[in-house]
Amino acid sequence: MHYPESLAKLIESYMKLPGIGQKTAMRLAFFTIDMKEEEVAFFAKALLSSKRNLTFCTICGNLTEEDPCEICRDKNRDNAVILVVEQPKDLMAMESMREYKGLYHVLHGVLSPMEGIGPDDLNISSLIKRLQENENIQEVIIATNTTTEGEATAMYLARLIKPAAIKVTRLAHGLAVGSDIDYADEITLLKAVEGRREL
Amino acid sequence: MHYPESLAKLIESYMKLPGIGQKTAMRLAFFTIDMKEEEVAFFAKALLSSKRNLTFCTICGNLTEEDPCEICRDKNRDNAVILVVEQPKDLMAMESMREYKGLYHVLHGVLSPMEGIGPDDLNISSLIKRLQENENIQEVIIATNTTTEGEATAMYLARLIKPAAIKVTRLAHGLAVGSDIDYADEITLLKAVEGRREL
Repeated sequence: MHYPESLAKLIESYMKLPGIGQKTAMRLAFFTIDMKEEEVAFFAKALLSSKRNLTFCTICGNLTEEDPCEICRDKNRDNAVILVVEQPKDLMAMESMREYKGLYHVLHGVLSPMEGIGPDDLNISSLIKRLQENENIQEVIIATNTTTEGEATAMYLARLIKPAAIKVTRLAHGLAVGSDIDYADEITLLKAVEGRREL
Repeated sequence: MHYPESLAKLIESYMKLPGIGQKTAMRLAFFTIDMKEEEVAFFAKALLSSKRNLTFCTICGNLTEEDPCEICRDKNRDNAVILVVEQPKDLMAMESMREYKGLYHVLHGVLSPMEGIGPDDLNISSLIKRLQENENIQEVIIATNTTTEGEATAMYLARLIKPAAIKVTRLAHGLAVGSDIDYADEITLLKAVEGRREL
C-alpha cells in the first residue's frame, strides 16, 4: 500500500505484535495518529522503560525493577512456603488472588523433550539452592499448567524435592467455579471426581 | 493486579488502543518484554515520528510528511480528475488498486447533522477553491462510503459542483467480486440491478 514512511513504519511495528494482522495494524496506526501527543509519548516511553528497567529477580526469577523483587524483600511474607510457577504472569495471577502470603519461584518454562528443554534450561537449580539454604521451608506448591509438559515438570520437581523431607503439593484440579458440568471436558471431570471432598 | 510499574504503564498504554482489553494488553506487554531491544526502540521511534512527522497536505488533505503530498507533487498524474474520499485511509486503499492516476481530495469526515458536522467542518471549501483555480479539471469522482451520511455528502457535493459544468460521478455500487448473491443484502442487490450493464 501507498503510505508515508513514518506511517508505514508504525504499521510494520504493530504487525510484529502477536495476533495483529495488517488491517488491525492499520487501524491502530490511524488511531495512534489521532491520539494526544502526550499519550503517544507516554506509550513510547513505556515501551522503552519496560525493556530497560525490567529484570529478573535473582532469588525467585520474578519480573522486577529492583533485585531482589518486592515479594522476596517483603519480611511479612511466609518464607516457609514457595509456590512454583511457569511464568511471571502466572505469579501475577496468583497475586491478584490476594490470599497467598508465601514466596514464589518462577521456572521460566517447562520441561519439554520435544523442544529440547531440559532441567538446566529452566530456573530449577536456583530453586534447589533456595531449599538447601533455608531450612525453614516446609512446603513447595507446584502450580505449573495442566499441560503434558506442566504435569511432567511437576512430577520431576516432586521427585527432586521430596528427598529433602519438604512437603510438595500440586494445585487442585476440578470444575471451575460457576462452570457447567455438562460443558466440562472429560479430564477436568475425572480430576473433579478424584479430588472430591467430604462435606 | 500486582505488576512492576513499567509493566503496568505498558499494559495501560496498550489498553488505550481500540479493541484491546486487559488480557490482550497483558499478552502484548509480555511479548514486548521478550522482543529485541532494537525492535522495541524502532517501535517507540515509529510512534513518536508518526505523531511528529505526519501532517495534512494543504492541497488535498492527504496524510503526508512533505507538504504538498507526493501525489499532488507528481507531475505525471492526471490533474483533470479529482477523486473525493472521506479519510486518508480511503485514499490509500484507492492507491493500492494501482489503476487510478488522477488526483485526490480528502474531506476528513462526512456531513452529519446528528453530530453537528456541517460543510464548514469538512475539507470542502478547499475543494471548491481547487475547482475554481484549475480550469482543466473535468471530472470529480465522489468515493464517500455508502452510509446515509456518505450518500448525503455525495449529493451535497454534486449539487455544489455541477453548476461549474464539471462532471460529477459516484463509484459504482453492486455485488462485490466473488461474493454470493444469496448472501448480499437487499440494498446491495438493488444497486446491482439498477447499475446493470449490457453484455
